[in-house]
Amino acid sequence: MMYGAIEAGGTKFVCAVSDEQLEIKERVSIPTTTPEETLKQVFDFFDQYTLNSIGIGSFGPIDVNEKSATYGYVTSTPKTAWKNFDFLGAVKQQYGVPVAWTTDVNAAAYGEYKKGSARGAESCLYLTIGTGIGGGAVVDGKVLSGFGHPEMGHLLVRMHPDDDFKGACPYHGNCLEGIAAGPAIEKRYGKKGTDLADDKKVWEIEAFYLAQALVNYTLILSPEKIILGGGVMKQTKLLSLIKQEFTKLMAGYVDTPSLDEYIVTPELEDNAGIMGCLLMASEEK
Amino acid sequence: MMYGAIEAGGTKFVCAVSDEQLEIKERVSIPTTTPEETLKQVFDFFDQYTLNSIGIGSFGPIDVNEKSATYGYVTSTPKTAWKNFDFLGAVKQQYGVPVAWTTDVNAAAYGEYKKGSARGAESCLYLTIGTGIGGGAVVDGKVLSGFGHPEMGHLLVRMHPDDDFKGACPYHGNCLEGIAAGPAIEKRYGKKGTDLADDKKVWEIEAFYLAQALVNYTLILSPEKIILGGGVMKQTKLLSLIKQEFTKLMAGYVDTPSLDEYIVTPELEDNAGIMGCLLMASEEK
Repeated sequence: MMYGAIEAGGTKFVCAVSDEQLEIKERVSIPTTTPEETLKQVFDFFDQYTLNSIGIGSFGPIDVNEKSATYGYVTSTPKTAWKNFDFLGAVKQQYGVPVAWTTDVNAAAYGEYKKGSARGAESCLYLTIGTGIGGGAVVDGKVLSGFGHPEMGHLLVRMHPDDDFKGACPYHGNCLEGIAAGPAIEKRYGKKGTDLADDKKVWEIEAFYLAQALVNYTLILSPEKIILGGGVMKQTKLLSLIKQEFTKLMAGYVDTPSLDEYIVTPELEDNAGIMGCLLMASEEK
Repeated sequence: MMYGAIEAGGTKFVCAVSDEQLEIKERVSIPTTTPEETLKQVFDFFDQYTLNSIGIGSFGPIDVNEKSATYGYVTSTPKTAWKNFDFLGAVKQQYGVPVAWTTDVNAAAYGEYKKGSARGAESCLYLTIGTGIGGGAVVDGKVLSGFGHPEMGHLLVRMHPDDDFKGACPYHGNCLEGIAAGPAIEKRYGKKGTDLADDKKVWEIEAFYLAQALVNYTLILSPEKIILGGGVMKQTKLLSLIKQEFTKLMAGYVDTPSLDEYIVTPELEDNAGIMGCLLMASEEK
């Protein structure tokens, strides 16, 4: 048995094949250009193996509603070459094996749930804070989904009193992603976050927004773990600032697990997504 | 087969017994005073019947975590007589039959999911806007729960630009409940909502807060239906104002079901909770 995994990001695709024990045998990184170019390289890689099933965790928005006519499509992405592309269909047609289909962040949530920081829990939420903000959740062992997948990076948040940045989201301006993703930090201060590492105020404001989102996720989902990944979280001081701010904003109302257990980083680090894809491949019939 | 239901609210308990087809045979309303007084009347009512199982939908916060030592307790409620009261234990001890245990709003969500506005959907969210704001959700046929039950009425929201009310929530000040529940309206304007029925601005502001919460619920849960109940929703103009504001705030980012199908009122009206309790009783083993 061999499983294939595609972690399809906006800038690169990471593809991997594993054995039945989910041990990765080979992995490649392929630039995200057009569906034709990128998938040709994906197929060239997978063609070396006989795969039993494949798991895809894709950048979005994507259609995950099995009842929909465009199930398996990338939908309203700003990456025009991928807009309305039948990604799942293309992979299914190429290999004729079962293919699991979800978002990149759902895959990462599932990876952390089964093999990472949320191992042993019954639910978790994974949030990545990087060039965008995206989240996925596992509830009772299943990836959370309704009429579509979560878009929890676009949460509407209240402004920090010392911040008048208008926000960078083309849809909502100052939603969470518009005000707290990497590009928002860069646009607000005219410098990248990595060049602002020692500016305390920058990270206090960042923590205010992220903690506010975490409070709202908690009030709605009460996941057993919240896992924070992505490039912005490489600012290691941020995690404790978020916990402080979370405590203030929650004001003792909900008795969460102890915050050091509750708000954590991904144990699988940057492998959460690819591991989630392999797990979903292994479970796809 | 007879089922019992307790919809335990902060001001009154509604109790009902039904036959196997969930047809209600008798119903009573009992004032919520102390656990001893109130439950004595509940038991006097149920003692007339031989019940196979009971469903409780209780005001909260309550402990719904089966792994917890205080599972079945009312926890940090401001109603001091009920604080740390083993509600589920008291009912189980009295009758020795299976007892289902959840929040009042989860019960209402489940009632609407099985027999009301969300019939045929796989998920829904029920929000009541009255003396407080509370919500429950059903995901894949199960009441949504994590380390605890949702407390989605306390969502942190951004202020309306024309509103400087400080809010009435003892924990969060201007969270959703603190700024948009019935008592918040009364405190802000010095009049009850029913006496402000014709003041357009009042309901525009109210719709702004509720729509904002609905956008955030949608971004996280994408439920197939959102059902709005409770006393404040008796202001019938509010529903269309909420839909207008939802459209503005979502800004076309998520392709929801058509809003007339998506944001609706409870088909079971004020029976959603008691019907949910009976349904849960009928399914409790």
